[in-house]
Amino acid sequence: MRLYDGGRAPNPRRVRIFLSEKGISVPVVAVDLGAMEHRSDSYAAINPLRRVPALELDDGTIITESIAICRYFEAIQPEPALFGTDPVEIATIEMWQRRIELHLLAGIQHVFRHLHPGMKEHEVPQVAAWGEANKPRVLEFLAILDQTLADRRFAAGDKYSVADITGVVALDFVRAAKLEVPAEFAHVGRWHAELRARPSAQA
Amino acid sequence: MRLYDGGRAPNPRRVRIFLSEKGISVPVVAVDLGAMEHRSDSYAAINPLRRVPALELDDGTIITESIAICRYFEAIQPEPALFGTDPVEIATIEMWQRRIELHLLAGIQHVFRHLHPGMKEHEVPQVAAWGEANKPRVLEFLAILDQTLADRRFAAGDKYSVADITGVVALDFVRAAKLEVPAEFAHVGRWHAELRARPSAQA
Repeated sequence: MRLYDGGRAPNPRRVRIFLSEKGISVPVVAVDLGAMEHRSDSYAAINPLRRVPALELDDGTIITESIAICRYFEAIQPEPALFGTDPVEIATIEMWQRRIELHLLAGIQHVFRHLHPGMKEHEVPQVAAWGEANKPRVLEFLAILDQTLADRRFAAGDKYSVADITGVVALDFVRAAKLEVPAEFAHVGRWHAELRARPSAQA
Repeated sequence: MRLYDGGRAPNPRRVRIFLSEKGISVPVVAVDLGAMEHRSDSYAAINPLRRVPALELDDGTIITESIAICRYFEAIQPEPALFGTDPVEIATIEMWQRRIELHLLAGIQHVFRHLHPGMKEHEVPQVAAWGEANKPRVLEFLAILDQTLADRRFAAGDKYSVADITGVVALDFVRAAKLEVPAEFAHVGRWHAELRARPSAQA
């Protein structure tokens, strides 16, 4: 088994944090995103969508999409459970994982990819107006998240889950997008600090 | 239990098809998207993100996000399994569900929301250049999907899954976005026709 990894980009980091929380170690093949290695024809043979990460199993099966890779490891090693165990927990974690991914991480990524000069060759065409349109949406979602975190420790309740992994990756990516989390969102700040203090955040 | 539903919009339809495949019937509360009912303060009390669908359980718990709602029903009634049962199947279905959602359905939705005059009040601001940027991406993904479907019956293999549900909903939404699936993608056409012929596609 080996993991095609992409360094600092948010999605590869989600998988590395997940593996760290599970205590699983997987041989890594570094894919140099700066040198556009993920766009090469040799990498397209692994993932025709030319994105990282990708997991190659011993029989040659390829799994792409960070959350799909995480679910593979959850299925082969259920403990600690990061996707929930009973129906309401499973659904609540999925809900928050998706809300944080679609409304926070994706929003920040749109701002980064469409407004950062360094992304000109990666995001073609860059649409500055779309980058700008995402800024207020990120703030709107942070306000909802902040209210939610007022009375719970983690994104989906009192247990750490994959939703928190997407959360710490998104919030750590804010700076690359030249955004910041307003200080008024104190619950988000407390949550982010707790997630960053876990050993897995170093992954 | 009741399901806040949104008529013809793609996401509510994903849940209705899923329930039909499971043979589960849930009382429905119609939310009138045309009249912007999902943006009302009373609906925001159910889902602060002001989107449909939302599932309210008997104890008042709210589950939003179509796929999270589907996972709730998969957990309480595992058969027929639509998210897979063994690790590779679970991961492969999640991979294709996400690929089809993120690269086909989302792309078509961006085209629709940013270019359709009827969406002016729903997508603020409309960014026409972003709508246009998604057109070639939808075609690129359809080419990859077509190659994949050359040697398998369904999106994730030989079994019908939630990835196919996202697929039929996305392809049925192509017309609303004033796009079309090029006839050269014959495998996509065959797959779409088979999915549409299932009774659940009426949902």
